[in-house]
Order: sequence, then structure tokens, then C-alpha cells
Amino acid sequence: MLVVGAGILGLSISYHIKEHAPSKDVFLVDRFAAVAQGNTARSNAMFRNTFTSRDNVALADSSIDYYLEVQNELGIDLGLKKCGYLWLMSERQASKGEANIRKLKNCGIELREYTREDLQRLLPALRSEFSASDEARLMDLESIAAGIFGEKCGRLDPTKLANYYKERFLALGGKIAVNTNVTSLIVEPRQPLGIEGEPFTWQESNVAGAKVEGAFHGELRAKKTIVAAGAWNNELLEPIGLDGHVKAKKRQLFTLTAKKSEELERLLRTRTFSSEGFPFAILPKNACFVKGVEENREFWVGCDDDFNRPFINVPDANLEDCKPEPEYFERSLYPILRQYFPAFEGSRAGQMWAGYYAYNTLDSIPFAFEENDLIVAGGQSGSGIMKADALGRIVEALYRLGEDGDATLHGGRGYRIRNLGFKNRSVEREEWVI
Amino acid sequence: MLVVGAGILGLSISYHIKEHAPSKDVFLVDRFAAVAQGNTARSNAMFRNTFTSRDNVALADSSIDYYLEVQNELGIDLGLKKCGYLWLMSERQASKGEANIRKLKNCGIELREYTREDLQRLLPALRSEFSASDEARLMDLESIAAGIFGEKCGRLDPTKLANYYKERFLALGGKIAVNTNVTSLIVEPRQPLGIEGEPFTWQESNVAGAKVEGAFHGELRAKKTIVAAGAWNNELLEPIGLDGHVKAKKRQLFTLTAKKSEELERLLRTRTFSSEGFPFAILPKNACFVKGVEENREFWVGCDDDFNRPFINVPDANLEDCKPEPEYFERSLYPILRQYFPAFEGSRAGQMWAGYYAYNTLDSIPFAFEENDLIVAGGQSGSGIMKADALGRIVEALYRLGEDGDATLHGGRGYRIRNLGFKNRSVEREEWVI
Repeated sequence: MLVVGAGILGLSISYHIKEHAPSKDVFLVDRFAAVAQGNTARSNAMFRNTFTSRDNVALADSSIDYYLEVQNELGIDLGLKKCGYLWLMSERQASKGEANIRKLKNCGIELREYTREDLQRLLPALRSEFSASDEARLMDLESIAAGIFGEKCGRLDPTKLANYYKERFLALGGKIAVNTNVTSLIVEPRQPLGIEGEPFTWQESNVAGAKVEGAFHGELRAKKTIVAAGAWNNELLEPIGLDGHVKAKKRQLFTLTAKKSEELERLLRTRTFSSEGFPFAILPKNACFVKGVEENREFWVGCDDDFNRPFINVPDANLEDCKPEPEYFERSLYPILRQYFPAFEGSRAGQMWAGYYAYNTLDSIPFAFEENDLIVAGGQSGSGIMKADALGRIVEALYRLGEDGDATLHGGRGYRIRNLGFKNRSVEREEWVI
Repeated sequence: MLVVGAGILGLSISYHIKEHAPSKDVFLVDRFAAVAQGNTARSNAMFRNTFTSRDNVALADSSIDYYLEVQNELGIDLGLKKCGYLWLMSERQASKGEANIRKLKNCGIELREYTREDLQRLLPALRSEFSASDEARLMDLESIAAGIFGEKCGRLDPTKLANYYKERFLALGGKIAVNTNVTSLIVEPRQPLGIEGEPFTWQESNVAGAKVEGAFHGELRAKKTIVAAGAWNNELLEPIGLDGHVKAKKRQLFTLTAKKSEELERLLRTRTFSSEGFPFAILPKNACFVKGVEENREFWVGCDDDFNRPFINVPDANLEDCKPEPEYFERSLYPILRQYFPAFEGSRAGQMWAGYYAYNTLDSIPFAFEENDLIVAGGQSGSGIMKADALGRIVEALYRLGEDGDATLHGGRGYRIRNLGFKNRSVEREEWVI
């Protein structure tokens, strides 16, 4: 059993397979120098269970439960803080979102609703009224009319979570090879004839492992190969005639220190929504967001704008082309931020970095399928960490039971494996994109 | 109104828009030296109405009706021959396909069923029994148990059809610029501020035309831009953050002369299924097919195998990398062909060429959607010519009515436009892939 990609998904898959069948040889390879050094390390690493899609809820809610249990019951620090998500909504957004909010509440998802007055009281640093501002009118900024707070939401430390899976996997006897780059998948006829040029069209053929370079070199042969290469899926799959079903889009994060401003320090220590700190705040414009990282006395800010931000089919191997753009902060992000939180006036980006979301552009729901002894999983579209445990369990079940089986997520919920495949795909479209 | 791509789809779209609104300026551009010189020219140009998906039936059946009317009523030669499709099926395939065949018959699709004995009588050159052959066992070839003949199926001349649309479009005052390569789409803020670096994230922006090089040079500005670039969709769409929703896969055609063999000449002149010649015959192995081109005294053969035939995200501009592989004919195709039609024993490929299918890997059904003043259509997945008229009408209606409208296909059938979009996609998966 060969698993390609030791990001958070590959780690979760490898652990769950090994956990279910400790006697099985599971070999996990990654091109980076350590596990979780690709887009996992670059992630904002937020989690939420506030989705309208039953599939997203199943995947995220059960993964969050698992992470909470690991930290709270097993006592393993994952850097997890249930600080909550706070959607700051315009009148228009609030009325558009009303049905979704009702749906979520009916499904038992923990939500609190706030009026503008509540917000002014609980978050005095927020500016909610823009009707008199020329600049806001120019930028088409809307006043804030309401807030929605998701309780079972927050942040975690992706490296700690990755290391948790890694240690458990290694303790069970799993093997990891880093600095090991998969250059191609091996396709071979099931019944080789020993003729030059095989496999021919009329031969049934299958994936029989991978060719690698680096710390390991040569052919790694396996009865089953699992590709969980995230944004790099296409690099391995397109050459053998399969679509990797993801496209990468760069996302950037910028840190803003709170150290120089009494006001920002106070904002960072907000406890009026959650005892675990400033909630992850989503502004009504372009899904700009502000995250508090109290232990570093800083905020992280970013934006999930979509149109005119390029898609990349196969990112460069080491993400060297994936650079943050200071002018993106200055000209696109900061002008919005300082309007809603005037305390950020004059703030400049400190650290900045970028990584790729691996989008499934069809429906933004993850996928997992098997074809010709190859299992492919991915398409988490920016919510990979918060769904990694569930998707890992589904891939383990797919490996063991095939597409017609049912996976059991943490907490005992069942999930029909084939719903996440492409042949019989049956997922509910997500309506609440951030 | 700018249309990018003068393949069969771009031509059909341009004609239908102009036909509906003759006063509208419609400018059609293409990078090749003439219209329909990309994958349209390289196509096998077959048509069939035998689909299980109601969407495929609507698109193909109405397009075929239109092409028949153009040739038969308007007297314009499209090289259209209703020679039929003949599926030669193994026992296994016949029993697997039974429900589909019943469904098609119930929908009024003209099908004839043949037993093995019928086939032996009507097509004596066919070898249908393999149980005693070691070679066939080695290649896993199945005996033929039954045949299904689709009547409203056949072949046409893609250049003649393209020229029909072109002439009609020009006669209505449409403009075409060939040798004009679109290098990028122009994205601009709706309300420009005249600041360097626009559009910023907080500005609403739209596609405002395209930058071109070649015979025309500079910016072609348009209120609405339509991309119908087939296999090259991604080249224009990914840079502006949209998925082109296609991946290209090379398909090859090889000609086999009938001139040197009495037996092949006789096979080519088969009239037992249709008065219009040898039916398009699909073998039970890997969807290998044989097409008769009686006027050239030759057959065309090819194969729609899938696994291990690479996907290409953006093909090279002039298809220079798209080469046929003689060894593919010799080692993969010929060995199958000579088993089912021993008359091909010793045949060698004469002409050969290759082109790209532009696959929508999601469901193989075409798509059409609008976003930010840009309309995108494509994803015909190898059946572009047989659906080009209907898809052109749907794009015309999308342009005029938006996604919530209904298109009227030839013959008066309605079609819900948004079913072909991605936001509210609702199409029936096709079960009969060749």
C-alpha cells in the first residue's frame, strides 16, 4: 500500500488504514523534507461545522469532534481554540442567508444571532455604519446589520495535528519517506506478455505503484496506490489519462501585529463571544477575514476573492512560485479592513505567505474514488484540515469495502462512500461559502 | 459581441445570434488561417441520436434534424449520409445494455435489433465466434452475440457544415477574423477610478473583450464575450480565475484503403443495413470502430480507449504536438480489427491524423454558463459536431435571456438553459458511451 502525499489528508488516510489493519504495510511518501510542508503548513487552519450541505456537515462536524476529543480526552495539544466564527452581515446578506440559517439551526448546529446593537456592545471596535462615507460608497461597502456566530468553530495548529497523525501512524509501524518525489505512476498490464510497448489497448492494465526520485529512488511497487497530493493531483493523474479533478488557486495570509496599539491589543483579547479569544471575523465584503492569534499578539488577515485570481492546473513542485503580493494587502485588503475596523488604520503587513487551495470546481465538496487499483482523494477546496479526519476514514473504507460500502465517521455516523465518487456522485451543493 | 473560436460551435453560436438579431455586431475570431481548422477539421464527424441521457437526446436529435433539413430541404450538401451505427455486442454487453435499449425504444428512438444469425447473414465478412481462438483468448476478445442498429445516425462532412454556418453568418453581415490569436481576456472594473493596478478586490469587475495578436492586433472590446475555444478553453479562462471545465485527450484516425482487396470493396459497399452504405461499426472491444468512406474507397478506424491515454490541460496552440502514432494502429488497433474483420488482414494505415476531444470530465454533457459578462460553452466530449446546432441555439438564448430562460431547439423543443450551467446544473448522466 503506497500513499502519495504526506499533507494532512495523506497522513489521516495512512493512519486510519494502519489503525484498521496494523499488519498491512503502508508506505507514505512526500517530496518535501518533512510531513505537512506543502499547503497544509501554509493553511489558515480554521474549522467550522456551519455548512448547509449535509455532506460538508458530516465531514467537518465529525472531524471537529475527533480533534476536540484528541485534545481534551487524550490530552494531546493540537493548538485548538474554539474561538468561533463571526459572520458580519449586511442587510442584504442577512436576508439572503435567512433560510440557510434556519436550516442550520433546525439541524442542531450551534448558532447565535446578533443584532447591530448587540455587535456594537460586544465588539465596540467594529464600525458598522457607512451611509455617510464617500469612500465606503466608492468601494461599495455595506453597513453591518447583523451577526451570526458559529460556536463549534475555531482554529488549530496544522503542524500539531499533522504530527499527531504522523506519530500515531509511526507507532503502529507505518513507514514514511520524505524527500521522495513521485515522478510518475506505474501502469502495467494485469497479464504481461513481455512484449515491448505494453500495455496495449486490448490489455487490461492497472496502476502498480510509482516511480520515485530522491531519498528513495526507483520503483515503489504496490497492489494499491493512493494519491492524496492535493494541488498536485493533476501532475500524477493526467499522464495516465485521469483527471485530477482539482485546480489550484493561490490564497494569501498577512500578519498584523497588535503590539504597537492599545486598541488592537484590546480587540485581540475580546472575550465577549468566546472564552477562547477573538472570533474569526468575516466581513461583508469579498469574504475578507480577520483571525486573532493571541499567543503571538497578532492578527492574520486574508480574503477569499475568486474572479480574476488565476487557476493553476499543476503548481510548481516546491511552491517557489507561490508568493504573497504585498500590493494585494495594501490595495485590495487593507482599504476594506480599515473601514470596518478603524483600529487597523496605519497597520502594515508583517509576515506574509501564500499557499494553494485545491478546488474541486464542480461542487467544492471533496471526492474519493477508485479506478484501476488507484484511489484518488482530494478537492477539499480550502477546507481540507477541518475535514481531514472524516475523509481519511472514508478513503480507508473505500480501500477496504469498495465504493458500495459505508464508512463510519468519528462518533458513529455512517457515510455512503460512493456519494463522494464521480460515477455515482451524490452530494449536496454548499450554499454557505465562508 | 465577440466570439472566440471559429470551430463548429463558435460558428453555430455566431450564426444563431446574428440570425436572431441581425442588427447586432458579431465578431468571430480564430487563431487558425481559416474557420474550422482546429479539432473540427480533425473530427470523425459522426452523428447519432442513440443516447440514454435526455439532455444528449435533446441536443443531438434536434441538431441532426436540422442538418437533415439543411441538406434535404435547402439542398445544401453537408456530405451527410445516414448510414447508421451498428453496435456489435458480446453476450455480456447485450445483457448489460438491455435496459438502456428498452429505454431508448420507449423514447421513440429508431433502433433495430439483430441476432448473431442476422449479423452473419447481413454482414458475412464479420467474424463473430472466438471460442476456439488462442489469440482471441489472450486478447480477451468476446464473441459477438447481437447487434443494435441506430437508424438516425451516420456521418457528415465537418468542413461543409462549418462552411454552411460561415456563409449564412457572413450573409447576415457577421464578421470573421482568422489568423487572429486571442492572447488574453480583458478584465476591467465596472467603474474605473484611473488608479494603477485596477481592478482591486473591492471593485466589481467584468470581462470587457480580448487582447489579440495576428491579422488583428490590440484590444477587441465587447460588452459580451463568448469563449467557445474547445480544447483551449483553459488557456483563456484559468488566467482570470475561471475553470475552463475541459481537459483534452488525443484521438487518432487511420485510413485503410479498400482498393487492393475485392473483399474490402464488397464490405465497403454493404447495403444490408442502410442504402447509404457501410454502417459505422463499433466492435465489442475498447469501442474500436470502423467507418466506411465509400467515395474515397477507404475505411477509417479508431478507438475510444480511455485509461492511460493522457489528459492535456492546454494543448499547444497549433496542434503541432498532436501527432498520430503509427505503432498505436499496429499494436493496439490492428490486432483487434483483423480478428473481427479478417478481411483487414495485412492492411496498413494510409493517412493518419489526430485531434483532441475536449472532455467535460464531470458528466460528459456539454455546458454553457455566463459569469461577469463572459459566456463560456464547451465540454462536448467528442460529440461536438452532432450537438453543435442545439448548443449554438442554447448559447444564443443564454445571451438573450440569461440562465433562467428557455432555449428553443430546432423543431420547437424547449430546453432549460440553466440545466447546462454549473450553478444549477441538472443533466442526466449518459449511460451509452459509444
